[in-house]
Amino acid sequence: MAPQTRRLRIAVSGLGRMGARHANHFLHRTPRAELVAAFTPNPKELAWAKKNLEPWGVTIYQDYDQMLKHEGLEAVCVSTVTTVHAEQAIKAIEAGKHVLCEKPLSTDVAACEKVLAAAKSHPTQKVMCGFSRRFDPSYQTAYKSTTSGAIGRPTILRSQTCDKYDPSGFFVDYAQFSGGIFVDCNIHDIDLALWYFSSPPPAGKAEKGEREVVLPRVKSVSAVGVTAVEPGLAQHGDVDNAVGVVEFFDGQIAYFYSSRMNAPGQHDMTEIIGTKGKLVVNGNPAMGLLESHVPSGIVREIPQTYYERFEAAFVEEARVFTDVVLDGGEVPVGLESSVEAVRIAVALQEALRSGRKIVFDREGRRVGGGDGVKARL
Amino acid sequence: MAPQTRRLRIAVSGLGRMGARHANHFLHRTPRAELVAAFTPNPKELAWAKKNLEPWGVTIYQDYDQMLKHEGLEAVCVSTVTTVHAEQAIKAIEAGKHVLCEKPLSTDVAACEKVLAAAKSHPTQKVMCGFSRRFDPSYQTAYKSTTSGAIGRPTILRSQTCDKYDPSGFFVDYAQFSGGIFVDCNIHDIDLALWYFSSPPPAGKAEKGEREVVLPRVKSVSAVGVTAVEPGLAQHGDVDNAVGVVEFFDGQIAYFYSSRMNAPGQHDMTEIIGTKGKLVVNGNPAMGLLESHVPSGIVREIPQTYYERFEAAFVEEARVFTDVVLDGGEVPVGLESSVEAVRIAVALQEALRSGRKIVFDREGRRVGGGDGVKARL
Amino acid sequence: MAPQTRRLRIAVSGLGRMGARHANHFLHRTPRAELVAAFTPNPKELAWAKKNLEPWGVTIYQDYDQMLKHEGLEAVCVSTVTTVHAEQAIKAIEAGKHVLCEKPLSTDVAACEKVLAAAKSHPTQKVMCGFSRRFDPSYQTAYKSTTSGAIGRPTILRSQTCDKYDPSGFFVDYAQFSGGIFVDCNIHDIDLALWYFSSPPPAGKAEKGEREVVLPRVKSVSAVGVTAVEPGLAQHGDVDNAVGVVEFFDGQIAYFYSSRMNAPGQHDMTEIIGTKGKLVVNGNPAMGLLESHVPSGIVREIPQTYYERFEAAFVEEARVFTDVVLDGGEVPVGLESSVEAVRIAVALQEALRSGRKIVFDREGRRVGGGDGVKARL
Amino acid sequence: MAPQTRRLRIAVSGLGRMGARHANHFLHRTPRAELVAAFTPNPKELAWAKKNLEPWGVTIYQDYDQMLKHEGLEAVCVSTVTTVHAEQAIKAIEAGKHVLCEKPLSTDVAACEKVLAAAKSHPTQKVMCGFSRRFDPSYQTAYKSTTSGAIGRPTILRSQTCDKYDPSGFFVDYAQFSGGIFVDCNIHDIDLALWYFSSPPPAGKAEKGEREVVLPRVKSVSAVGVTAVEPGLAQHGDVDNAVGVVEFFDGQIAYFYSSRMNAPGQHDMTEIIGTKGKLVVNGNPAMGLLESHVPSGIVREIPQTYYERFEAAFVEEARVFTDVVLDGGEVPVGLESSVEAVRIAVALQEALRSGRKIVFDREGRRVGGGDGVKARL
Repeated sequence: MAPQTRRLRIAVSGLGRMGARHANHFLHRTPRAELVAAFTPNPKELAWAKKNLEPWGVTIYQDYDQMLKHEGLEAVCVSTVTTVHAEQAIKAIEAGKHVLCEKPLSTDVAACEKVLAAAKSHPTQKVMCGFSRRFDPSYQTAYKSTTSGAIGRPTILRSQTCDKYDPSGFFVDYAQFSGGIFVDCNIHDIDLALWYFSSPPPAGKAEKGEREVVLPRVKSVSAVGVTAVEPGLAQHGDVDNAVGVVEFFDGQIAYFYSSRMNAPGQHDMTEIIGTKGKLVVNGNPAMGLLESHVPSGIVREIPQTYYERFEAAFVEEARVFTDVVLDGGEVPVGLESSVEAVRIAVALQEALRSGRKIVFDREGRRVGGGDGVKARL
Repeated sequence: MAPQTRRLRIAVSGLGRMGARHANHFLHRTPRAELVAAFTPNPKELAWAKKNLEPWGVTIYQDYDQMLKHEGLEAVCVSTVTTVHAEQAIKAIEAGKHVLCEKPLSTDVAACEKVLAAAKSHPTQKVMCGFSRRFDPSYQTAYKSTTSGAIGRPTILRSQTCDKYDPSGFFVDYAQFSGGIFVDCNIHDIDLALWYFSSPPPAGKAEKGEREVVLPRVKSVSAVGVTAVEPGLAQHGDVDNAVGVVEFFDGQIAYFYSSRMNAPGQHDMTEIIGTKGKLVVNGNPAMGLLESHVPSGIVREIPQTYYERFEAAFVEEARVFTDVVLDGGEVPVGLESSVEAVRIAVALQEALRSGRKIVFDREGRRVGGGDGVKARL
Repeated sequence: MAPQTRRLRIAVSGLGRMGARHANHFLHRTPRAELVAAFTPNPKELAWAKKNLEPWGVTIYQDYDQMLKHEGLEAVCVSTVTTVHAEQAIKAIEAGKHVLCEKPLSTDVAACEKVLAAAKSHPTQKVMCGFSRRFDPSYQTAYKSTTSGAIGRPTILRSQTCDKYDPSGFFVDYAQFSGGIFVDCNIHDIDLALWYFSSPPPAGKAEKGEREVVLPRVKSVSAVGVTAVEPGLAQHGDVDNAVGVVEFFDGQIAYFYSSRMNAPGQHDMTEIIGTKGKLVVNGNPAMGLLESHVPSGIVREIPQTYYERFEAAFVEEARVFTDVVLDGGEVPVGLESSVEAVRIAVALQEALRSGRKIVFDREGRRVGGGDGVKARL
Repeated sequence: MAPQTRRLRIAVSGLGRMGARHANHFLHRTPRAELVAAFTPNPKELAWAKKNLEPWGVTIYQDYDQMLKHEGLEAVCVSTVTTVHAEQAIKAIEAGKHVLCEKPLSTDVAACEKVLAAAKSHPTQKVMCGFSRRFDPSYQTAYKSTTSGAIGRPTILRSQTCDKYDPSGFFVDYAQFSGGIFVDCNIHDIDLALWYFSSPPPAGKAEKGEREVVLPRVKSVSAVGVTAVEPGLAQHGDVDNAVGVVEFFDGQIAYFYSSRMNAPGQHDMTEIIGTKGKLVVNGNPAMGLLESHVPSGIVREIPQTYYERFEAAFVEEARVFTDVVLDGGEVPVGLESSVEAVRIAVALQEALRSGRKIVFDREGRRVGGGDGVKARL
């Protein structure tokens, strides 16, 4: 077989909602990848895998460690529940595999840092947290536009994650594991702020080929929130609508909104506001290109779920990760940035719960007491 | 009183739906005009005038000829039913008044030509047909853009007039007087085609200060239509949905659509398509700047009536007409163009009824028989 | 003259940018008002008035107190620089005039309260602060929709005021008087939050005909900002981009953004987010209904200034104020609300400068020290 | 291998622009298909195939007849130049293969009818003309909405195909083979009219499982056009801007526009106008969800080519064709409809060239002479 048709042998861990999708993407929609194995301990997911994966030659495991030993396995996509992301990622790294891990790495900053440490000690392996929005073409065009200087210096970023209301109560129960609305929802928006506000690596580092761009440094975080539709969230210290503000050193501000009650569907949007212009991603959400002119007015439906909005981005994420592993180069989402995103999200969640603004110095140390948030590396 | 505060003494003839609006515009919203008189033979309109106009010092007449003799009267706005537009306009012209006449001048081309002849024999008086869309700011900006060359040479014009369905049956009865859907509705679109496709006057004429721009010359007209919601229209040779195509000499095409059944409201729109770009007026109709994000999607209401859409244009039309009379200059809507619009509309209506394409030579004579449409002047 | 044609005799104080517009609105575009007098001490404005107002019979004064004595004067529109709004409003009230005062009443809360006290001691006179956005049809439709329950309970309000960048440096100098970006720009957004979050008066009060709706009570304010384009603002403790968050008791949050550097023009927008839907006012700004399809894409121009966006609202504001004075009833913008708006804006400005979150108890007293912001009445 | 993983063995004939894309779609993006062979006589395309297809196990042929004999081949996707579509399709059918043929079947009606006859004599094979727009999700949602009765009875259809201007002159040379602008561009719009205006099969036929829906019957066609940017087209009897109107018996009208000079890119759009509402597909074209707020205004880029707009639809077309072959059932685009589309396009082209309206009786025979267009079957 010609070199260009060599395919990455990958496994997917966890076959829940997103895991099953990742499995399908690697199985059917990533030409250079070959889904060789999958792991799930869940009977229902197992049945799904028997029917939908096994016939295509995928080996199904009920033991994660066994799966890691699958003959020829090169990479793992970790899509289990958030609580085991870090542990599974570390095991895979230590077993010599490349890792694509669903976001967030963990709801716990220390756990994230362990993943980062593991990755650093295996520098030839690719480890990437799957911040899917970065692979959406509109966000990518906005990024190119930003770095080209089209809007001057990016100064303010506004970003929101708004879900359609799910009356099943699922997200209320899930709140005990999710880390809270900033960690679960706005983590994407935080990641975008870090992306659009990052600077290229300083001259010296760039020359040596060192990879990480310079992340903006947090100066303060503050947050407020309410439980408008699900009072039960309060018992987990969570809310269903939240506003968070992150101030960075060097004159940049990001502000976020998240909601669990958006009436027409999923509406995630971002504005990158520069000194000379503004880029708006998904200010006008739409499910396709159809508009209905009916007695109630002109009506446009919008995506109902995160996946409906970002399906193509997930497929692109799989393609890019595969290409980077096969061809070499840096993963496009730096792991330090993904750890920093959790750190900020956790701080926002704390600010929400305490009602206090949290202030940092340039080294990432808290000013005025508090020790819940460690310094940036 | 200072010269700049001198006000034009105007009367409004006919106080039906549009007449009452014109009266209000001249009374309250045209600073340099003074509504001094109004005429209506209709008891209901008369009662309205007693209550709403008389207290402000407006004299109400039940005899049109008497009104023309009102002391100091300088101008008349003719807003009666279409069938008497031409007659009243001619009387006013012959009485030495300036005239603003509602569109169309008549449903009969010969009658239109009589108005034109009267106007020509009183060259110091201003006579203008009220094609309100020309005074809409979006159409005006589009015109400036067109003449500036921003879209290259205007080549194709698409324009539509779509009314919200009126279940009262009014427009079915009215079809016997309206002249048909092209004369009643698309006349506006035809006027726009003549406007955007006209050329500046040839060098010689312009030097002598001769006014009329050069109108494009019709090469053919064809039309089709259906009665989708009001079969009763057929008895008047009319339809509720029509498509008409007008081919001009020198490589320009206008195509029109009109409908009586637009579900969300009034939707009149126009595209001016040039060799280097396209201008779209009201491709996205809206009643203000509000959008509702509700379970059915994102919803935008649109104007319900022609007046809701063009109220400001009517006020501007009154202002401009007043200024031209007081300050001198040419009326912005040439009367020959307004006659040509009727000629084209009548030809389209004939093409609709006969099912035949009607062809003209460069002098406006029919090719291949037919005599219903006279030559252009 | 019939009762319905009786016109309110009003004067305009200050003929700067907005004052001249108010004068024109009352002179030419408010049928039931008669502009009888105007005051300005400024030579340039005086020359304008001689040319544009005097010929229409308006008496021009260079002494405010003299103007108040103008024979038959009934009302004053205060449009001078902000620093004298309160003083002139109080003088007019004490002289028995109705007052329409430009926003804000003052940049100083105590001064605002004096205006409120004066108004309360003259209960038969109408005193209204001119929050123009409330008279914009889209905001009004949104209000009706909100009170009808269409979006459930209003919970989150996002609102922004973004000006086109003015390279003249005007707003840098003006920063020493303006009270800062929250007091100068976001005051409108704050007013909207108070409007959409207010509740009808409690049953008892409503029965007695007591007027004021129940304003939401502030729980905390926090703010951040940067000087991205005009570092000179820092000397006045001001910024050119700011984000502010206001938390109310009873589960409501408003968050604001203001900017002095919006590239295409003026973009003020508001989202009212309820438990069952969201209303967006001006999410898609537009200058009319024209779109250009040109090589760079599909382009839509937007208003360049606040007045281009809200001209019709200012005219409506004049009409409504006039009607309320002539016909009786409550002014639609409660004066207590307008004082509260300044109180919140000043607190946001303090939070911006100090970097501290400011917290209040239900009676409006500061929690945790501080005394700059007095209790709500 | 499990039944569900059995894959359709397909070949692609022609590896020009669209052929190469089809090859990629079947190779990498159609899980249930296996691209086993490809044919091209063109050296440049051959080189591309050696590099991009052969390494994945695809056999490359320079002889179409040889390719048809490829071991195990089940289906052929015909993507050669239009002039050989019909011939290759017929050969493949006669060789027992299923066929997916690029549009149009031919520029010659008689040739189309031969393909139809061949297909009818091999009723167990699937033969489908690739009208890609039918596989676009927005068009599909519109179709479901239409058949659900949401807009009442579909009455008027407006549809346009507008390409970005290609200054290379390619399409001028190509005009000698393309069949003209209606056959080359508007054929898609004509297909949509046939789709949205078709009725379900009559009761009797439906009971017997007979497949074809009832196509609307053409009553007249008329067309006009101009050469605005490429006068050279005239030598081939073609134009660069055309308007065509098709009247159907039973009260339906379709009108079309095509252009070769759309400034910002590709803009294909369709309105399906019913008695109770209107569906608009791509009234607001967009390349993704990004809007730029820059000094010139708010700008949105649009797709540059037909493929940028319809890439996903082509992939879906491949998927659906594959599923129908593997699982049984009817192809979603009836072959008789595809022949009828050519018949209408050819008639429009003739109307354009002759300047005459062409009229048909209910049996598809021309009324008033003419013999260029045969009767509908």
